[in-house]
Amino acid sequence: MRSNNPPRGLLVLVVGPSGAGKDTLMERALTDYACTRHVILARRIITRPAGAGGENHQAMSDADFDAALDAGEFLIHWRAHGLRYALPAAIRDDLARGRTVLANVSRKVIGAIAELGLPVAVIEVTAAREVRAQRLAMRGRETASDILGRLETLAWQPPQGVDHYCIDNGADLDTGIERFLIALARACGGDTPIRHLPIDSGPRLIGFLSLRHPLHDAIQALPTPRVEVDILGRPLVLEVQWVDDDHWLAPDAIGLARATLARLGLIAGMSLQLQPAPPPAGAPALRRKLRGQSLNEDEFFGVVHDIADNRFDEASTGAFLASLANHLDDDEIIALTRARARIAQTLHWDRPMVVDKHSIGGLPGSRITLIVIPIVAAHGLTIPKASSRAITSPAGTADTMALFANVELGPDDVRRVVNGANGCIAWNGHLSHTPFDDMTNAIVRPLDLDSARMSVASILSKKLAAGVTHLVVDLPTGPQAKLPTREKAQELKRLMESVGAALGIRVLARITDGTQPVGRGIGPNLEARDVLQVLNNDPDAPQDLRDKALDFAGALLDWAPDVRPGEGRARAKDLLASGAAKARFERIIDLQGRRGLPAAPGPFHADIVAPASGRIDHIDIWRLNSIARLTGAPGDTLAGLDLAARKGERVDIGQPLYRLYASSQGALDRVVAFARTGNAFELKRE
Amino acid sequence: MRSNNPPRGLLVLVVGPSGAGKDTLMERALTDYACTRHVILARRIITRPAGAGGENHQAMSDADFDAALDAGEFLIHWRAHGLRYALPAAIRDDLARGRTVLANVSRKVIGAIAELGLPVAVIEVTAAREVRAQRLAMRGRETASDILGRLETLAWQPPQGVDHYCIDNGADLDTGIERFLIALARACGGDTPIRHLPIDSGPRLIGFLSLRHPLHDAIQALPTPRVEVDILGRPLVLEVQWVDDDHWLAPDAIGLARATLARLGLIAGMSLQLQPAPPPAGAPALRRKLRGQSLNEDEFFGVVHDIADNRFDEASTGAFLASLANHLDDDEIIALTRARARIAQTLHWDRPMVVDKHSIGGLPGSRITLIVIPIVAAHGLTIPKASSRAITSPAGTADTMALFANVELGPDDVRRVVNGANGCIAWNGHLSHTPFDDMTNAIVRPLDLDSARMSVASILSKKLAAGVTHLVVDLPTGPQAKLPTREKAQELKRLMESVGAALGIRVLARITDGTQPVGRGIGPNLEARDVLQVLNNDPDAPQDLRDKALDFAGALLDWAPDVRPGEGRARAKDLLASGAAKARFERIIDLQGRRGLPAAPGPFHADIVAPASGRIDHIDIWRLNSIARLTGAPGDTLAGLDLAARKGERVDIGQPLYRLYASSQGALDRVVAFARTGNAFELKRE
Repeated sequence: MRSNNPPRGLLVLVVGPSGAGKDTLMERALTDYACTRHVILARRIITRPAGAGGENHQAMSDADFDAALDAGEFLIHWRAHGLRYALPAAIRDDLARGRTVLANVSRKVIGAIAELGLPVAVIEVTAAREVRAQRLAMRGRETASDILGRLETLAWQPPQGVDHYCIDNGADLDTGIERFLIALARACGGDTPIRHLPIDSGPRLIGFLSLRHPLHDAIQALPTPRVEVDILGRPLVLEVQWVDDDHWLAPDAIGLARATLARLGLIAGMSLQLQPAPPPAGAPALRRKLRGQSLNEDEFFGVVHDIADNRFDEASTGAFLASLANHLDDDEIIALTRARARIAQTLHWDRPMVVDKHSIGGLPGSRITLIVIPIVAAHGLTIPKASSRAITSPAGTADTMALFANVELGPDDVRRVVNGANGCIAWNGHLSHTPFDDMTNAIVRPLDLDSARMSVASILSKKLAAGVTHLVVDLPTGPQAKLPTREKAQELKRLMESVGAALGIRVLARITDGTQPVGRGIGPNLEARDVLQVLNNDPDAPQDLRDKALDFAGALLDWAPDVRPGEGRARAKDLLASGAAKARFERIIDLQGRRGLPAAPGPFHADIVAPASGRIDHIDIWRLNSIARLTGAPGDTLAGLDLAARKGERVDIGQPLYRLYASSQGALDRVVAFARTGNAFELKRE
Repeated sequence: MRSNNPPRGLLVLVVGPSGAGKDTLMERALTDYACTRHVILARRIITRPAGAGGENHQAMSDADFDAALDAGEFLIHWRAHGLRYALPAAIRDDLARGRTVLANVSRKVIGAIAELGLPVAVIEVTAAREVRAQRLAMRGRETASDILGRLETLAWQPPQGVDHYCIDNGADLDTGIERFLIALARACGGDTPIRHLPIDSGPRLIGFLSLRHPLHDAIQALPTPRVEVDILGRPLVLEVQWVDDDHWLAPDAIGLARATLARLGLIAGMSLQLQPAPPPAGAPALRRKLRGQSLNEDEFFGVVHDIADNRFDEASTGAFLASLANHLDDDEIIALTRARARIAQTLHWDRPMVVDKHSIGGLPGSRITLIVIPIVAAHGLTIPKASSRAITSPAGTADTMALFANVELGPDDVRRVVNGANGCIAWNGHLSHTPFDDMTNAIVRPLDLDSARMSVASILSKKLAAGVTHLVVDLPTGPQAKLPTREKAQELKRLMESVGAALGIRVLARITDGTQPVGRGIGPNLEARDVLQVLNNDPDAPQDLRDKALDFAGALLDWAPDVRPGEGRARAKDLLASGAAKARFERIIDLQGRRGLPAAPGPFHADIVAPASGRIDHIDIWRLNSIARLTGAPGDTLAGLDLAARKGERVDIGQPLYRLYASSQGALDRVVAFARTGNAFELKRE
């Protein structure tokens, strides 16, 4: 059990001799297991230069260390192996917010920390001496004599009254992480062990409990039987199904389906703290919204917070989303955006200006982000870009960037890359965690409930949480785009800009042509080729892609304090022409982690040609999207579609409209046959 | 498998020797097992007088039988035991509507029926000779020599190509019914046996299937894994959870939780026909409604039909209900009412005028129905009243009537009682089956989504399905009633009457005092006493109850063709004063099935007295309701609360306000203690 009452956060002190693998365990547990999403790794201050390998510590000189100590910036400090270490005082704030904080400390300071009156537990990580010796030798940070010193271990006793867990990390890493998570869950108060039940409950979050579980009567007395579980400090509500067979599930355990374990990032053997789920505090506000009343920020916060914690049943959530789609006035959009930002993962930047670029999407190809970010970053603006992978399109920005560099960045990685290059192009999967979307996407999408007004709240809440101050939004408009008419685009532009202003974000929404792809390539590899052509000032580069990228980079640069308004585009052009943008792209790639150069597309290819002569009157972008997906993109990064003609151009019979690339003759044959039943191009005879 | 393709209904011929128990099995299966809700029992035509015991047949003279035969009114006819039997030709219509029809026939006509080209199966019910002899002797319908004749059995063979199931009904009745249902399910095409799984899945309808079930891949390919099951001809969709352990569930079975078995009236061992559930056909209409568009009757029908069949997930249903609560124009209420009536259980009356009385409820006590129905029926109007049991109140009309008579009537019972007495007072549980409410009540109630406009559709759809032509509605209005203000009551009155007119139902909605109970008693026994006092013209009878009952009976009688408008109340008064109403009440009781006279209330009682002198200014009916419930009513029919003072009256300190009755001193002490913390009466000192 947590050592204070009421439990408010927990400081987990991870101790153990050098080479026991503490840092690796903590990092991997926090990166790879979603159950640790609420857990914070305390960043230590060390008088060791940054970038000297090992953990991502905050480097400080001895003098600065003394000054910070005097200023009360440390929770605790100590010396070891000739270096000075400290934990930041800000940990107190994290604990007050209920967070679980992991800290790698020396055993000798545990007593002193315990005396601070904070809720503390200790996890001791050990490994046999020879295992540690080998690990220390491999990391190559210390000299042989340093290693000998670090191999010494001290017999010690944890202070009285402090929970203490000991795990052996001498086996393989996965075993070590499992043991670490099991100990961490117990330290966080878990007393009900998780068992895997061979039932697939689908996307629903169900906890199976025995009819003889001690909480049975209390849970059954609820209007709907739901249990609140504490997952390493994060509360979450599970629907309960009762099991009436002790061979299936012991009365003291909680059963979870494999899909639930995977979704929550839990492993069998970890334990949870259970209590009957109280009725959602946001219920009265939700009912008010259903009756057509407007909600303020705190009311929205209550509802979206409860939805994120799974406190509402699906029918209530569905009813709430329908009422949002039905009516949401401008003030409510602002309130809802703020409320959603409060439960999203936040990033803080100590910079006066953080810019970003967003597209509402819907056009295949059109990969300007990989050009805009290097230009803007090369000028010196901060642009930490998080992009999505494809869901229904042939490629997302993150899919294309992944050909050049690692895109699986966590918040610390983003900070590091941006510190080194002013910008990054990361996958948003580990960054903009939005628990509200997690719970509602499965409802919103099939019911088509995502109104333009709701999307404003969704987009701007993520930007607000990410610390963005200036934002350019791309609104592709056309009959087959998300915005079918100029009127709808104008209304969304007005809303984005005015809601942004109310939130303190300068927003410029640009209505763009949404009737055909921008650039030639569709699919990761071909889009990457287009991007490189533009960055390399290749005379054969697609001019429409270059122009659109310069427009958006220019709009962002117009906001730069050292650029006169209206001259941003010229500055962007210079940065592109001079090679500065390309050089910045390379630096971003290096900092994110370079991948090998993309291979050539295909290898199998075939041209789809004009069946008659005429002028290209219309390109069916939905059909084009389907054809491009059928090549195998984005899963097959070398597959795709390369446009050879554009809207308005005249083509002769037999002239190629586009080339299809696939990884096998069979795949190519399938997509060619499909394209022949409708090639997405409408020609007008002249 | 069903014998024709596509399967459209099934005629199940039940055969077997006299005394095998065919009639009892069929009746009990249809009455006690909800799974047979879609199954129809064919009413045979027999040249035996009605009321001669046994099945509820249609009696016909030999001459009429010949005439009906010539008119083509029979599907088939035969002779047995000196009588002539026939099945009505209308069975063809039932089969065409996909219904399962049970018919008790002689084995010798099976061949002839099979040649009609209808989908047919045979269930043969047998029992040992001595068992049958005993049963025939006990029913006492035949002479000893008749019995000997009936005991003879014939060796026979069912015709080629007709499915044939044989069950032994020699054991106890429950075993016989189980065997009958298992055979019936197989006859209806069931090929997947039901197993009970020791999991309590709550109110959710879940079918557990093995990951190795043959339909696994097809079901997993659906947007949400759902299986459509055929329950004796009624389609229903179950959510699927997969089981990955053959010891828990065999790959060829379907697992159901006990609560699901109970709710669907199924038993383990019965088998179901399974197919992947197609996407709901009503989905486009549902999405249109979510986007704020109005729906017409067919569109509403599609959605409510799919909701009733459980084809939508809860989030979609919740979203739909929220959109209804948000906007429903007058035309839509009419369309929704018609759509709901189409999926409700319907009753047909061959009478030009069928009247009814409905209250939107909310007032404890106020049991006028038990007075209104006998008066109106005594005059000669047809009034087949179906009432509810209490959900959150101390008594419902059906709870109080159940003290006098059996109220668990099926449609055939209602017809029989009304044929004999013009009216009935039945519990609505076996009558107004509304599958839409079954699926939505659990959503509507907690979310408070039941707008006045939705309740108009709900109420009038049931009346439409029940064949009602003239309806008086009681709208109790007051700060604590369902209608808090006169404006809201006026609006609901207008809506009820205008929607009724559009549907062809003459509706008169009466706004009544909803600030205090009508009558003195609250709780089944005390309300029954009030009713008897009024019917018996007891000078001590509560005058407010008598007056309100006469108002409503009078309003209904104003519509009688032989009563001049405006004279209905006087006619009602005559019928009450003359004892005709009381006599009619007794006749209704006899036809429904008389219960013993209600015992005296209590036996424990205590008075709650005025804590000060003053005039009764306000009665808190919510508090009064809670106090009355706490006595144990309605479960404890002798418990309750008896009012001794009314609003506006002057009381002296120590004068009783009401008397509490309970079945034990402990229960009495609890409710007295509760009442002393707030007795629900507000006194104004004068």
